[in-house]
Amino acid sequence: MRAEYEAELDDVRQILISMANEVRDLMRRATHSLLTADADEGDQVLVDDAVVNTYHRRIEDRIYGLLARQAPVAGDLRLLFCALHIAADLERMGDLAKHVAKTGLRRYPFPAVPDELASAIADMAAVADRISAKISGILSNPSATDAAELDSDDDAMDELQRGLFVVLLSADWRQGVEPAIDGAMLGRFYERYADHAVNAGRQMYFLVTGEPLH
Amino acid sequence: MRAEYEAELDDVRQILISMANEVRDLMRRATHSLLTADADEGDQVLVDDAVVNTYHRRIEDRIYGLLARQAPVAGDLRLLFCALHIAADLERMGDLAKHVAKTGLRRYPFPAVPDELASAIADMAAVADRISAKISGILSNPSATDAAELDSDDDAMDELQRGLFVVLLSADWRQGVEPAIDGAMLGRFYERYADHAVNAGRQMYFLVTGEPLH
Repeated sequence: MRAEYEAELDDVRQILISMANEVRDLMRRATHSLLTADADEGDQVLVDDAVVNTYHRRIEDRIYGLLARQAPVAGDLRLLFCALHIAADLERMGDLAKHVAKTGLRRYPFPAVPDELASAIADMAAVADRISAKISGILSNPSATDAAELDSDDDAMDELQRGLFVVLLSADWRQGVEPAIDGAMLGRFYERYADHAVNAGRQMYFLVTGEPLH
Repeated sequence: MRAEYEAELDDVRQILISMANEVRDLMRRATHSLLTADADEGDQVLVDDAVVNTYHRRIEDRIYGLLARQAPVAGDLRLLFCALHIAADLERMGDLAKHVAKTGLRRYPFPAVPDELASAIADMAAVADRISAKISGILSNPSATDAAELDSDDDAMDELQRGLFVVLLSADWRQGVEPAIDGAMLGRFYERYADHAVNAGRQMYFLVTGEPLH
């Protein structure tokens, strides 16, 4: 019974790793489609986000099944709660990648991101990708060092978001209202993506080590 | 043992009701402070959001305590998971009220919402308030009718958000970039608030009736 439970919990971890890899890949492709005005790639992100949602449902089914059949003990229950939280954060990250892709698609064939914003957006995307990579890493190979770096990565993201607003609100801004709104929204999507990734990372650390991250 | 467990679960429901009332009140006050440029009221929203966070921690402590001491059976576990989800949604709704208040404070003593947007924002706030009222109601007195209306309220919110963007992107817009970004962000805050409320409402319905809402 115990061995079966451990095997199922391990299975949940494997699905979470696949989900984390998928949302990382989704955001990379969403950013690329946005910055190159590639509508085919953007459309594919919308399609592939459904894969993330499928993983999410599979994890919920697996965990509710475990609960019903295995009567896990208190310590295990926290791990299962934690896995559900991570799955919910990852699902939301997929949604945010979809929002990024949609922002590009809405302006196609024109680029949604004017030259003045391209480097700010690329920098935010790079931090989002770095945090994503860490959360996949923590699941497969938990490192307190990686986990502890999540907060400073998140601070870096907040700083980049402030920088983005400086550009949008400067007297030199010549792009008008719509690209400004798109830019501000994109900034928020990357910031929220990173925030969910940091939450997921903290929970993952707990899931793998059984210890909260301070 | 069972009676004690039921009493504790009831206690969790009571805290969720307080939390739901509090986030409703927070958003009402945040909107009022925003539309009247009332900095004292806005500041108070930031302070009072901490109360919501305290409720959230109290619910988590209570539920983890229940798990450790009571060894709940499978059916109960779903209810406890569900209560944790609701608490997390409500906590996020408090954050969004705070974002609304902060948007007003950032522009003080000037109004953050120009006249062209005041009615759109007031309409979104009214729908947010209506959904909030329903989720408190579902917890204290679960009604499938109220719960079923949540989706159409959410559709109404999406429609209002589209209307807001029509104003922001119209050729008549004379307010420049910063109020446009503020307006777009505010629209998103209300829309997200409603979305979390709808999620919480669905989970509440399950928490109280033991049946999923279709």
